[in-house]
Amino acid sequence: MIATAAKATLTLHHFELFRQIVGEKYVLADEESMLDYSHDETEDLHYLPEVVLKPRTTQEISAILKICNRDHIPVTPRGGGTGLSGGALPNLGGVLLSTERFNSIINIDERNLQVTTESGVITEVLQDAVKEKGLFYPPDPSSRGSCFIGGNIAENSGGPKAVKYGVVKDYVLNIEMVLPTGEIIWTGANVLKNATGYNLTQLVVGSEGTLGIVTKIVLRLIPMPKHDLLMLVPFRSAENACAAVSAIFSAGYTPSGLEFMERDALEWVSKFVDSSTLSIGLDVQAHLLVEVDGNNLDVLMQEIEGIAAIVSGYDCGEILFADDTQQKAELWKLRSRVGEAVKAHSIYKEEDTVVPRAELPVLLKGVKEIGKKYGFHSVCYGHAGDGNLHVNIIRGELTDEQWNGSVKDGIREIFLLVKQLGGTISGEHGVGLVQKEFMSILFNETQMRLMKEIKKIFDPNQILNRGKIFD
Amino acid sequence: MIATAAKATLTLHHFELFRQIVGEKYVLADEESMLDYSHDETEDLHYLPEVVLKPRTTQEISAILKICNRDHIPVTPRGGGTGLSGGALPNLGGVLLSTERFNSIINIDERNLQVTTESGVITEVLQDAVKEKGLFYPPDPSSRGSCFIGGNIAENSGGPKAVKYGVVKDYVLNIEMVLPTGEIIWTGANVLKNATGYNLTQLVVGSEGTLGIVTKIVLRLIPMPKHDLLMLVPFRSAENACAAVSAIFSAGYTPSGLEFMERDALEWVSKFVDSSTLSIGLDVQAHLLVEVDGNNLDVLMQEIEGIAAIVSGYDCGEILFADDTQQKAELWKLRSRVGEAVKAHSIYKEEDTVVPRAELPVLLKGVKEIGKKYGFHSVCYGHAGDGNLHVNIIRGELTDEQWNGSVKDGIREIFLLVKQLGGTISGEHGVGLVQKEFMSILFNETQMRLMKEIKKIFDPNQILNRGKIFD
Repeated sequence: MIATAAKATLTLHHFELFRQIVGEKYVLADEESMLDYSHDETEDLHYLPEVVLKPRTTQEISAILKICNRDHIPVTPRGGGTGLSGGALPNLGGVLLSTERFNSIINIDERNLQVTTESGVITEVLQDAVKEKGLFYPPDPSSRGSCFIGGNIAENSGGPKAVKYGVVKDYVLNIEMVLPTGEIIWTGANVLKNATGYNLTQLVVGSEGTLGIVTKIVLRLIPMPKHDLLMLVPFRSAENACAAVSAIFSAGYTPSGLEFMERDALEWVSKFVDSSTLSIGLDVQAHLLVEVDGNNLDVLMQEIEGIAAIVSGYDCGEILFADDTQQKAELWKLRSRVGEAVKAHSIYKEEDTVVPRAELPVLLKGVKEIGKKYGFHSVCYGHAGDGNLHVNIIRGELTDEQWNGSVKDGIREIFLLVKQLGGTISGEHGVGLVQKEFMSILFNETQMRLMKEIKKIFDPNQILNRGKIFD
Repeated sequence: MIATAAKATLTLHHFELFRQIVGEKYVLADEESMLDYSHDETEDLHYLPEVVLKPRTTQEISAILKICNRDHIPVTPRGGGTGLSGGALPNLGGVLLSTERFNSIINIDERNLQVTTESGVITEVLQDAVKEKGLFYPPDPSSRGSCFIGGNIAENSGGPKAVKYGVVKDYVLNIEMVLPTGEIIWTGANVLKNATGYNLTQLVVGSEGTLGIVTKIVLRLIPMPKHDLLMLVPFRSAENACAAVSAIFSAGYTPSGLEFMERDALEWVSKFVDSSTLSIGLDVQAHLLVEVDGNNLDVLMQEIEGIAAIVSGYDCGEILFADDTQQKAELWKLRSRVGEAVKAHSIYKEEDTVVPRAELPVLLKGVKEIGKKYGFHSVCYGHAGDGNLHVNIIRGELTDEQWNGSVKDGIREIFLLVKQLGGTISGEHGVGLVQKEFMSILFNETQMRLMKEIKKIFDPNQILNRGKIFD
C-alpha cells in the first residue's frame, strides 16, 4: 500500500535552501527516488517523502534541521532502510534525511579497544574492519550486510550474540547527535564507566530516531574470541526445545548463540537459499542452533559436550556438529535468512516478543493457542537464549477483514500474555509505526507522559520522526 | 562543618501526617538522630535534616511524597549513607527519607538468573544470597558491607569486577520507583533485551536520587565463576604500572580485576588494618593487583602466566601470587580499605577521574605535575582496568586558604586534563554536591538544559534531592 502524500509543507524556497546546504546532487525529488525511499523492510508499508536529502557533515544536518524546525517541516531520518517496525518511513511526508554518506570509520583505537565511526557505516563493514585488528563488535542483526550502525543505535539492535555479549546499548560509549533544533551535542564520554549526570547516551540508544540524528558513535570493542563450535539440535517437540534453553543456562553454560527455529522456518529458508545442508526428519518440530566461543578449544569441546548431554534429556534427535568453517557459515546463513524466507513465502506480520527466558515454552504454547482461537498460522523463531521470540503471523489465505480484524485481536492477546510473563512487545525491532497502538498494554499514563515529555525536551516543535513510538 | 539548618518548612501538621503514614516510631526528630543522618562518607560535610522518615512500603513513600510535593518540602533520599559525593546529604533541610526498612530480597529466580530485591538491601547481603545459589552479582563497591543496592543504582556503582563484568547499569533490568509527585512506576520489563520506548531504566541508573525514590529492583545475574587467581605486582615506576595495564588488554586478556595502588595507598592501608602480609621494597612506587577468573583452572594458570610475562616487560619487581583463599581475601581487603585508610590519615578530597584506559599514564603524570604546581600531595589508586583513577588530595598541613583556593584551582586543572583525554569527572561516585561546580567543564549549555529539563519532567516542584548534580 502506498499512502497518499501528506499535506505539502515544502516551498520552492526550501528546495533552494537545501541545495545550498548539501549541493544540488544530494537533493532528490524525482518520482523514482521518492518510491525508493518510501519503504523499509516493514511488512508492505509505503509512504512517499517530498524530498530526500543526503547531507555529508554534521554541520549540514544541523543547518537542515534548523530550517525544518523553524518551519515545522517533518523530518524522517533513515539509515540502511532495513527496519522492521517502520521507523524510517516518512509517514508525514516532508524531508527524508538519509545518513548514507556518513560512511567513514573514523578511528579504530587499538590501545583502548574502541572505535569511532560515522553513523552510516554498514554494520558488517564495521565488524570486518575491527576484526582485522583482532577486535570484536558483537551486536549482529540479520541485516548486517546492509543495515547501518546508526540504525542499530536507533533500534538497540541485538542479534544472535546478544545472549553472551549483550546488545548495542552495552557497547555504545558516546554519541554525537544533532538535536531537532540543530544543536550539536555529544551524549557522554569515551569511557567504560560514567557517573556524571543523566545517561543521555542510553536515552538515545533505542529512541528510534525521535530525539536527534546520530552522526558519530564511539563503541567499545572486546578481543575477538579465537575459536567457536556450533551444533544444530532437532527436537520432536517445540516446547521441549524451548524448555532445553533454560536448562542450559541453569547448568552454568553461557553459549555465544542459542537460536530457536520452528520446523517451518528452517524448511522455508532451506528452500529459499536452495540449501541441501539439511534433511529435516518427519517427526522434527523445531531446532536449536547452539554456539559456544572462547580462546581454548579443549574447554569449548567440554562445553559443547556438556550442552549436548543436557539437550538429550529433552527428547532431541541426532545432533549435527558443524565440521568446519564452511558448514558453520552455512548453518548461520540459514538462520540469518529466515526472515527473508518468511517474507518471500507470504505477506506476514512479525511480532518481536521477549520474555524471561524460562517462560519461553509458556509463550510458544500461548502463541499457538491464540493462533487457533483467532484463526491464523504462525512461524516462530528467534534468539531463544534471550527469551526473544519472533512470531511471524502468516497471511496465507486470510481475508482483509480477518487480517485487519481478528488477527489484530490475536496480536493484542499475545502481547497481553507477554506482559503477564514479565516481558515486553519488542526485544530488538522497536515500536516504530506498527506497534505503537499496543504501547498502552505495557505502559500506564504516567510512563507514557514521561516519554512524551522527554520527546518534547529534545524536539519542542515535534518535527523529528513524529508519530513513531507514540502519537 | 555542620551547616546551619535550612529555613524551616515543616509544620506540626506535617509531623502528624507523617506519623499517620509510617507510624510514630519511624518519624525521628531528636537531635542525636538528626546528627546521625546529617552526613554520609563525603569529606567532612554535615547538613541537618528537620525530620527523618523510615517508611516500609512503596505506598508509604508515595503518600509522603504527595504531601511534600504539594507543600514544596525538600526531600533527600538516603540508602546506606556511604556515598562519596554528598548525594545523601539533606542540604536543604526538610525530610530525610531513609530506605533502611526496604531490606527484603523478594525473589531469587534461579530459572531466569534474576533477582528481585527491595532497594534497602545491603549489597553484600544480596551478593551472598545469590552466591548460595551459584549465582553472581558482580558490581562490588568497597562499601559493600554497608551500602544499599538502591544507592548503587543511584550512583551507577562499579568496583573492581567492572573491568570484566561491567557496572550496575549492565545488570539492572527493571526498577520500581516513586516519582516526586507520588506516582509509582516500573521503568522497564524483566527481560534481557528491550526496544520498547525510551530507556527509563537507564535514565534512572546514575541519576543520584533526583528523579524518584527506587523501591524495588530486578537485576540479572550470571553463573558464579568456579575459580580465580590473584597476583600483586610491584613496580618501580607508577607510570610504568599504568602503562602495563593497557598492554595486558592489548594482548587479548580480560582480567576480572585490575587495580592500581600508589605506594602511599598500600603503605597506609597496611598500617590501617594492621596487616603484615606485605613488605614493600624501598624502590617500589606502585602496585597492580591482577585477578583472572573462570571455570577452568588450567586456562587461568595460562592466563596469569601470560599476564605475568607482560608486566615483567615494565620493570616490575617480584610478583606475589596469592596462595590460598585466605591470602586472596587479605590482598582484596587491603585494596578495598584504602579509602578508609586515606580518610583516617588526613582530611582529603577524593576525585573520581576516569579516562580511556591507555591514557592512564598521561593522567597520572598530569595529576602529579598539577599537584606540584598548586602545592598539594595526592595519593592515587583505583580501577586501572577501567581507566578509573581515584585521586585523593591530602590536606596535610595546608591552610584553609590553600585548601579552598589553590587546591580547587588544581582540581579544575585535573578535570580539564581528564576532559582533554576523552574522560569524565566521575566514574562511579557521582556528582552530587561536591562536583557540581565542575559540570560546566564537561557539558555545554545544551547538554545541561536537557538534563535540567528531564529533572523537571520527573520533579515539577523540584523537591527531590534538589541541588545535587546541578543547581
